[in-house]
Amino acid sequence: MTYRAPVKDFMFGLKELAGLEQLTHIPEFAEAGLDTAAAVLEECARFNENVVAPLNWEGDRNPSSWKDGVVTTTPGFKEAFRQFGDGGWQGLQHPEAFGGQGLPKAIGAACIEMINSANLSFALCPLLTDGAIEALLTAGSDEQKALYLPPMVEGRWTGTMNLTEPQAGSDLAAVRTKAEPQPDGTYKIFGTKIFITYGEHDMAENIVHLVLARVVGAPEGVKGISLFIVPKFIVNADGSLGERNDAHCVSIEHKMGIKASPTAVLQFGDHGGAIGHLVGQENRGLEYMFIMMNAARFAVGVQGIAVAERAYQKAVQYARDRVQSRPVDGSVAGAAPIIHHADVRRMLMTMRACTEGCRALALVAGAAYDAAHHHPDADTRQANQTFYEFMVPLIKGYSTEMSLEVTSLGVQVHGGMGFIEETGAAQYYRDAKILTIYEGTTAIQANDLVGRKTGRDGGRTAKALAAQIEQTEALLAARDSAAAQSFARNLKAARLAFVDVVEFVAGHGKASPNLVFAGSVPYLMLAGNLMAGWQMGRALLAAQDALNEGEDSAFMQAKIVTAQFYAEHILARVPGLRDTVVHGGGSVCAMPLDAF
Amino acid sequence: MTYRAPVKDFMFGLKELAGLEQLTHIPEFAEAGLDTAAAVLEECARFNENVVAPLNWEGDRNPSSWKDGVVTTTPGFKEAFRQFGDGGWQGLQHPEAFGGQGLPKAIGAACIEMINSANLSFALCPLLTDGAIEALLTAGSDEQKALYLPPMVEGRWTGTMNLTEPQAGSDLAAVRTKAEPQPDGTYKIFGTKIFITYGEHDMAENIVHLVLARVVGAPEGVKGISLFIVPKFIVNADGSLGERNDAHCVSIEHKMGIKASPTAVLQFGDHGGAIGHLVGQENRGLEYMFIMMNAARFAVGVQGIAVAERAYQKAVQYARDRVQSRPVDGSVAGAAPIIHHADVRRMLMTMRACTEGCRALALVAGAAYDAAHHHPDADTRQANQTFYEFMVPLIKGYSTEMSLEVTSLGVQVHGGMGFIEETGAAQYYRDAKILTIYEGTTAIQANDLVGRKTGRDGGRTAKALAAQIEQTEALLAARDSAAAQSFARNLKAARLAFVDVVEFVAGHGKASPNLVFAGSVPYLMLAGNLMAGWQMGRALLAAQDALNEGEDSAFMQAKIVTAQFYAEHILARVPGLRDTVVHGGGSVCAMPLDAF
Repeated sequence: MTYRAPVKDFMFGLKELAGLEQLTHIPEFAEAGLDTAAAVLEECARFNENVVAPLNWEGDRNPSSWKDGVVTTTPGFKEAFRQFGDGGWQGLQHPEAFGGQGLPKAIGAACIEMINSANLSFALCPLLTDGAIEALLTAGSDEQKALYLPPMVEGRWTGTMNLTEPQAGSDLAAVRTKAEPQPDGTYKIFGTKIFITYGEHDMAENIVHLVLARVVGAPEGVKGISLFIVPKFIVNADGSLGERNDAHCVSIEHKMGIKASPTAVLQFGDHGGAIGHLVGQENRGLEYMFIMMNAARFAVGVQGIAVAERAYQKAVQYARDRVQSRPVDGSVAGAAPIIHHADVRRMLMTMRACTEGCRALALVAGAAYDAAHHHPDADTRQANQTFYEFMVPLIKGYSTEMSLEVTSLGVQVHGGMGFIEETGAAQYYRDAKILTIYEGTTAIQANDLVGRKTGRDGGRTAKALAAQIEQTEALLAARDSAAAQSFARNLKAARLAFVDVVEFVAGHGKASPNLVFAGSVPYLMLAGNLMAGWQMGRALLAAQDALNEGEDSAFMQAKIVTAQFYAEHILARVPGLRDTVVHGGGSVCAMPLDAF
Repeated sequence: MTYRAPVKDFMFGLKELAGLEQLTHIPEFAEAGLDTAAAVLEECARFNENVVAPLNWEGDRNPSSWKDGVVTTTPGFKEAFRQFGDGGWQGLQHPEAFGGQGLPKAIGAACIEMINSANLSFALCPLLTDGAIEALLTAGSDEQKALYLPPMVEGRWTGTMNLTEPQAGSDLAAVRTKAEPQPDGTYKIFGTKIFITYGEHDMAENIVHLVLARVVGAPEGVKGISLFIVPKFIVNADGSLGERNDAHCVSIEHKMGIKASPTAVLQFGDHGGAIGHLVGQENRGLEYMFIMMNAARFAVGVQGIAVAERAYQKAVQYARDRVQSRPVDGSVAGAAPIIHHADVRRMLMTMRACTEGCRALALVAGAAYDAAHHHPDADTRQANQTFYEFMVPLIKGYSTEMSLEVTSLGVQVHGGMGFIEETGAAQYYRDAKILTIYEGTTAIQANDLVGRKTGRDGGRTAKALAAQIEQTEALLAARDSAAAQSFARNLKAARLAFVDVVEFVAGHGKASPNLVFAGSVPYLMLAGNLMAGWQMGRALLAAQDALNEGEDSAFMQAKIVTAQFYAEHILARVPGLRDTVVHGGGSVCAMPLDAF
């Protein structure tokens, strides 16, 4: 087996960190306690380990291919996707009213991690479909919901997000795709969209493209963008499929990674106009698209964790098997498996600590999302929404940047074999590199963190988080163990560094925007590192308590060691980042443009 | 043009940092002053920009291929290699007695960077040949030198290093290839070697394999390894080519990067035994091989700088061309080329600063090698040898790790386009990953740094370097400019961190080897960062002096800005690494093996 889902760690995170039992006090989630979670996760693990994971390497060798407008996916994908739909996995987090299971996002996050560990390329299809479902749930009409959602939730139809155009990547103000109103209330769509993930494929009966376009006469910039449903096949009023719409895939990209996932160039309206249906109101497209994007950003962060986990497991396996050289401490007489060597251990621990820290943060943020959307108390909803929104750019930005380091270490553990494609470690390294780019680059996440999440409220949310972290520090400092003491020290230094940076960002953003934005990514790396580390500190406390109560001692011991490693090796990077942000802004933009 | 050689920066480094003019006081290098260097570098730049660089992307699309034991290289490689030989580039650093030009390694380092920037895959063939030449120069008999060196120096024959076997990667004690003495003084060689770069190809008339093998009855372990010349075609006494030797390429690897460079599995002696000639004495093979490896390690470090430079140039070009979004400081009214965005600037400056710092260190170390080998004064030779040997693991380890970060940022600057293979940025990212692995992984370099270079003399060499750095600090602190002041502060903090680590390593190495080796790679990253940073501090001083004298103001201003950026963003990472090494050793090996 090439992948074993870390179900025990998911359950630990859900129980001890995300507070899943508390979510069961919310009426919608009354049944979604630890027993349900355990059952769902075990089943999800089985499916992904046995059905999806074995297709991962095959997808790299035998990617999706394009011919005459038709995309053929990797052999096995179509059948696996059918099983995915039949198993109810697409509907996991979606409302029961449309055929879903209505489970919390906290549990969903674990399931999303599993399918992405199993196969990043395959998992992108349901990931985009999730986003399209969320957008329709929020902004679609009742008729649109009734028509489109059930087959999407069922996994018979899939969804896409059509934002990017050749001249408009991160900058959606530059979108040019045109929508012409028709007498029957529909629109004709004309334009070219690029980088459309699963924009064309053979795994579903229909594809529901959600397309950003400008209604003729709409204002310039982002205020003139509307959102349209443009199905591949026109959907009749009874839900049956009608004619082929004028939306065609003219090519797919030749990419460094996630090769099995077709990245389409879509041409709308080359044969008279693609029929589109307005979602919500005209000119509010960006707002609706942000719903999809925010869901997708969280999910892409989880993709980072997922590929890191897979790379870690592969590296551990190799390190156990590969015999090479005598350990420096003489603990083995002759040549030993390389897992005995200190630097291999350092690499594996780095991979593990970063992955577990980011996972813990994603589970906690998932539970906050659930409370933000479903808790009966408005203040609790608001507090959780604020927490969640602060974490989204960190989960997207930090977890994906982390995955670059982890997958690189994964190759490194393999030595020369890591560079040989057949070994498989290289695929994770190649696949991961898209994660810091799509759904908003790390810099775009950092802009969000600096502007909307920190600057807008003068750093209030950030400082409130720092105060919560200080409480965790106090709990750690009160424990006797060397691990807890070391953690408390490193957490304190990191938290103080965070506060310095928050004050810098909140204080200088308006007068010296370049100075602040020059440090935006280091700030994101600092904050992500700290927030994931904070969860590892909480995990350490919980693991010590569980140990004292005699629970699963090997697992809890490992959690404590991993947390201590995180503090001493990962959190230890934070103060240097503070110095970079606070003192280094001036030298970032000092170079004259023509001197580069 | 896809690559422009940074000749101005090479000349600055040779003149202001490496002290090329001082080398001309050494009789062998009397003619190798700045004028010679300028002429050689300009010519080398032209050749690599026009002939070698255009083949880089073609090599990725159309890699070397194997059929029936024959390897066909990328179209254009054979002709380019002929031009390389005809231009005298293979002989640049080699003795005039064998047809070379006898130029200093300092100048050679610049030329090696250029050819590797132009085409990492292509450059590997001469790189390995250089190593083989050095080994034969040191350990070969006069007869062997006379027979093999002239065609190798001329670029008609190439060389290889045959160390690795399936069970023996980093651990040469495990080498099993067998050598049976024959009555005529030759040996018959039997065994399998893997990962042999340019182990078979069509660019040269003959290939001189240098092969590690065990003479029948030799001692176990590394003390029983001998070095053999095993030519692809037997060489007659008059230098003409005789029969095909029993050394055959049975396959080449399918790799993530450097695809044009054939990585061969070589089978020796499957048809009766390959004829081998002992180099030097039996059982001293490892010692001779280290000559090759040390030359190759320096060169691989330069490869890291080279691919980083190429990635930087490509990213700058894209950042100038790609128009996207309005800058946050309002400096441009509408959408602007992305080079106007602060985070793009941060990425480009990071790429540039790291590359220039490592380049400066390589040039300085190259000059130390020249003095170590050719200076008339024995003490000067010794001092330079000590300096050079300390720097080799840093140049190999740090410059290549740096290249991973730089090539990753290079993709990132390109956004989604960076992930599309046709853009070309992804190739550098894939190519670079081998650099931290071959010729000794980063961990192997770090072992060398910890053991032979720091522990063995109780940290004396390291502390002497720290004292030199302190002098540079004092010079910087005495300058008024904000750049120099900032540099002095950051350099001091980094130097103090280095001293702490050196004391820790020297003090604990024997009693607690795991504790020390657990921090070996962070120590290497710290030391490499500092030593490259030290050179950037020296560059800052030299650039300010040059400015005051009215020299090339744009270049010198840019150097000062880049140095300040290095101090505030790169050197700023050092103190965190100190904490990791000094306080984090315990948690690295604390995890029970079965808990991974």
